[in-house]
Amino acid sequence: MPTAISPLAPASFPEMPPIAGVRLATAAAGIRYPGRTDVLLALFDPGTSVAGVFTRSKCPSAAVDWCRDRIKNGRASALVVNSGNANAFTGKSGRAATTLTARIAAEAAGCKIDEVFLASTGVIGEPLDATKFADVMDRLVAEAAPAAWQPAARAIMTTDTFPKGAAAIVRLGSRPVTICGIAKGAGMIAPDMATMLSFVFTDAPIAPAVLNALLRDGVADTFNAVTVDGDTSTSDTLLAFATGAAAAHGVARIARRSDTRLPAFRKGFDAVLANLAEQVARDGEGARKLVEVFVEGAASKKSARRIALSIANSPLVKTAIAGEDANWGRVVMAVGKAGEPADRDRLSIWFNGIRVAHKGERDPSYDEAAVAAAMKKPEIMLKVALGLGKGRDRVLTCDLTKEYVAINGDYRS
Amino acid sequence: MPTAISPLAPASFPEMPPIAGVRLATAAAGIRYPGRTDVLLALFDPGTSVAGVFTRSKCPSAAVDWCRDRIKNGRASALVVNSGNANAFTGKSGRAATTLTARIAAEAAGCKIDEVFLASTGVIGEPLDATKFADVMDRLVAEAAPAAWQPAARAIMTTDTFPKGAAAIVRLGSRPVTICGIAKGAGMIAPDMATMLSFVFTDAPIAPAVLNALLRDGVADTFNAVTVDGDTSTSDTLLAFATGAAAAHGVARIARRSDTRLPAFRKGFDAVLANLAEQVARDGEGARKLVEVFVEGAASKKSARRIALSIANSPLVKTAIAGEDANWGRVVMAVGKAGEPADRDRLSIWFNGIRVAHKGERDPSYDEAAVAAAMKKPEIMLKVALGLGKGRDRVLTCDLTKEYVAINGDYRS
Repeated sequence: MPTAISPLAPASFPEMPPIAGVRLATAAAGIRYPGRTDVLLALFDPGTSVAGVFTRSKCPSAAVDWCRDRIKNGRASALVVNSGNANAFTGKSGRAATTLTARIAAEAAGCKIDEVFLASTGVIGEPLDATKFADVMDRLVAEAAPAAWQPAARAIMTTDTFPKGAAAIVRLGSRPVTICGIAKGAGMIAPDMATMLSFVFTDAPIAPAVLNALLRDGVADTFNAVTVDGDTSTSDTLLAFATGAAAAHGVARIARRSDTRLPAFRKGFDAVLANLAEQVARDGEGARKLVEVFVEGAASKKSARRIALSIANSPLVKTAIAGEDANWGRVVMAVGKAGEPADRDRLSIWFNGIRVAHKGERDPSYDEAAVAAAMKKPEIMLKVALGLGKGRDRVLTCDLTKEYVAINGDYRS
Repeated sequence: MPTAISPLAPASFPEMPPIAGVRLATAAAGIRYPGRTDVLLALFDPGTSVAGVFTRSKCPSAAVDWCRDRIKNGRASALVVNSGNANAFTGKSGRAATTLTARIAAEAAGCKIDEVFLASTGVIGEPLDATKFADVMDRLVAEAAPAAWQPAARAIMTTDTFPKGAAAIVRLGSRPVTICGIAKGAGMIAPDMATMLSFVFTDAPIAPAVLNALLRDGVADTFNAVTVDGDTSTSDTLLAFATGAAAAHGVARIARRSDTRLPAFRKGFDAVLANLAEQVARDGEGARKLVEVFVEGAASKKSARRIALSIANSPLVKTAIAGEDANWGRVVMAVGKAGEPADRDRLSIWFNGIRVAHKGERDPSYDEAAVAAAMKKPEIMLKVALGLGKGRDRVLTCDLTKEYVAINGDYRS
């Protein structure tokens, strides 16, 4: 386990208000890590809507299967998340563990078992002993309280070096509603659907179908535009819960995507997703640089995304940035291997605003000293202009350091 | 530049006989590296056939463009290879450099400029000063001699830690012919077409079209089945030259793919390609383990290849192997992210012959001590059985170590 906090971490955990209709509690169930919390319980008031986006892995975890089978109902009463064990590649015992966990939570919380959602993160391929949840569940239900966001974000961490939270207050018509989210993720992060675990909560009254649409739209340029190592997890889960408690203050329910109040809400919702996704990149395993890859002038947005991901996932580009080397040659390589339309002789490349290559050659005004100074910054903006069309896109990643290798060379043992 | 020889290197450079009709010479032209050779000249007797396979990068080097434009003629008189500068992303000056290099060689060797083939490897994006070749070319032509294979393999090295050569003698009918090859490549190695630079030579009399077919068939399961870092180079070049000198000893020309003598030749030719490709994986930057990924029971060979590459390119799998950790969970992750048909509950996984996971769960007989001992070996065979169909394939790679990051964090500067 890493101990030093990422140098790219925000200065502090944000102020996050409570969400009416959401109560949180954490406990140390002894799943794997000694001396820390590893279970999060969230309880929701009746009538809470839920929507979810999950990993596209062909070998998903048991918890992902559990959620997928129940997300269409659109109703949630509880969420149980554990760290330390992903309950993935655990076969029948994994399925039994999800059922047992949900039953323990449903009995303690007095809700339907099919309204319990689950997420697990940690080591893959080890059986998860769900009986450990029985020891702590009654206390979790009893202690659940609003606004315990930071402990909640801590309980779901694995190789994360800091807890990740983000909040926004937006107006639905004339009334304020609140959106709060937490996330974990540091390695095995790649589209699609990027990620790790993230849970977003709001008191806005939103029908499940609308929440689902918001989530699918919102994820495309946030969590699906982040990559740490190109490795897609078996367990990626993003769930959004809308308690509807704001209805008590006169906020009418959003039942349709055409609701004129939705754009304002979407803006805040997307901002929370984007903030959390950026924090995941900032906590990339071993990361010392946050890297924004912008691609413009591509044949289409889709083509720009593919080229940006090819650059962001290239070990040679990432190690060069770790070495503070503005190695545009490797950027050209990564553009070339993406398989998308590209013309070497129209390419221009910038690092932190300094054009280092122009129209297929080193920039005539290239100044090694200026570029070297720019590369020392903790945030690197790498821009590539293809000069072909109007497609543009942006992907977030981090550098590849010896610490990534160290963290992943002895994570399991 | 790394100095220590890869622990996975062969014990010594192989015995390689001369090829009648091929003469080799090397020189230090001062392209980039001090105190070592960096130019290889190969001269071919009249009537030599040539075939080539090149990078699929959309941003190929100037030398790749040069060769592609001339390979269809099927005739070669000379080959000039330099290390230290890839002459890639060098725009008009790069094109001028290829023309100048070929002209210098053609004049010195007294051959047609369009029968000079070129390859360059090294840093991308820096102008190549081709006038440096003029200083050494007359001497190279004068000194060119048969069988200087090891100096030739050394002159084309970049981050390679050992020179790579392989040879085979096969019978064409009742007569022996010889096949010799050299290669370089250690990073920026990925399909398709994997690689780096490799040059294969034979005295067999083979028509260009047949040589081309042999090369395309042979590369699929050799160079195209090797990956170090998933990064496809701008400069990948594999050229095969057949001088036809064996015709003087009564070997009749192979003009058709249906020639009954071809299978025996193909066997030797493929063995040379496979040997060189394996050496590239053994010299993967920072490599401490050679990893063979076998996939069987896939829906098709193509599907098996994709799954094998997903495993072989996964940073998490590669760092786990560097840490001598038989982390089958990450193998499951890499199978799942490949996007190919897979059923988690049918998967079985072996490390060096020890089954660690069976039908979607940890193997009941899993013995941590036995597995830990097996993972200490320098060669790791990672086998995945999908249990779906008859598709099988094999890919070679290496582990991902801190040394890879060190080598690539300050290669250019």
